Amino acid sequence: MPYKVNPLDILIEQFRKLPGIGAKSAQKIAFHIMRMTDEEALAFTKAITDAKHDVHPCGVCQNLTDKPVCRICENPKRDHSVICVVAEPSDVLAIEKTNEYNGLYHVLHGLLSPAENIGPADIRIKELLERLRGDEVKEIILATNPTVEGDATSIYLSKLIKPLGISVTRLAFGLPVGGDLEYADELTLMKAMENRREI
Amino acid sequence: MPYKVNPLDILIEQFRKLPGIGAKSAQKIAFHIMRMTDEEALAFTKAITDAKHDVHPCGVCQNLTDKPVCRICENPKRDHSVICVVAEPSDVLAIEKTNEYNGLYHVLHGLLSPAENIGPADIRIKELLERLRGDEVKEIILATNPTVEGDATSIYLSKLIKPLGISVTRLAFGLPVGGDLEYADELTLMKAMENRREI
Repeated sequence: MPYKVNPLDILIEQFRKLPGIGAKSAQKIAFHIMRMTDEEALAFTKAITDAKHDVHPCGVCQNLTDKPVCRICENPKRDHSVICVVAEPSDVLAIEKTNEYNGLYHVLHGLLSPAENIGPADIRIKELLERLRGDEVKEIILATNPTVEGDATSIYLSKLIKPLGISVTRLAFGLPVGGDLEYADELTLMKAMENRREI
Repeated sequence: MPYKVNPLDILIEQFRKLPGIGAKSAQKIAFHIMRMTDEEALAFTKAITDAKHDVHPCGVCQNLTDKPVCRICENPKRDHSVICVVAEPSDVLAIEKTNEYNGLYHVLHGLLSPAENIGPADIRIKELLERLRGDEVKEIILATNPTVEGDATSIYLSKLIKPLGISVTRLAFGLPVGGDLEYADELTLMKAMENRREI
């Protein structure tokens, strides 16, 4: 036998490790996988393999994409003079859903956190500054979470960017303080975007 | 480009289809997958592929196993004169957790349901009757859910098995009626097992 542990237990354990999945859910999902046809299971694993293989950060904004440059950066109808800076790709999805924002994005892939030893070189700040060369960009909207890390990152970035003569704003605190941007409802996010203020 | 749809959207959609996973969770999990190392992602897809490839119904009790005959059926310390009949492999896990039951199992892989057109030939009843040839089995415990389908299946089986001179019992209704056996707490399940009664 090639296994010391039952492959079903390994499967349950793998799902258990995913965010928001408890022991019961992991078990339920594993049995669901066992009831899938081979084609369904293959489509499932292929989706994972394909996404891991073909999806990577956009060469410009660092958001996840399967193209060299993402659909948003490539779109000539978007306002290329405004960049909204977010921590994670999921934040881009959340803001896009408001249908209120027409500028570009920059995904930092993290936030500054002295506690977790995450410094400026660990997130995509260099790539952001790169984009500010030339004079196309007029405004940077800092859309980081209203948390200690989000505040620290936003202060750090505003100190770097304001001297370049670029307007720096931050999402209005319509967001519940201490909350997670990703879970804000669309109306709150829309308001926060409208009421953004210079810092 | 080999894709019409973004592979990230395909990945989110695949997780969305799993039981108990909503749109937000699917998205969160997909981004979690994107942050995995290649090794972690490979371990994840391999767990699915291995389980689908190597796990199959036990040749005796029909529970899922990676061996020709499962660990429980093979164990000489278990009481081979008692068979507990359940609908799904997850029910076996639930009963095993009580540490109260020492007999064997039989997994039907479904319940009779005229509404869903599931008849006796669609679940593993034939395989159960096969096991009752000879005179080793003295008792059949029907541990189907206390639902319409569970009741129908249990009545159908008791009518088939009692004429063979085998004692047929059903789990006591310590289980909340209309509930799901899989979600019963261990104490309730233990009580239900202790108080099983002849039908």
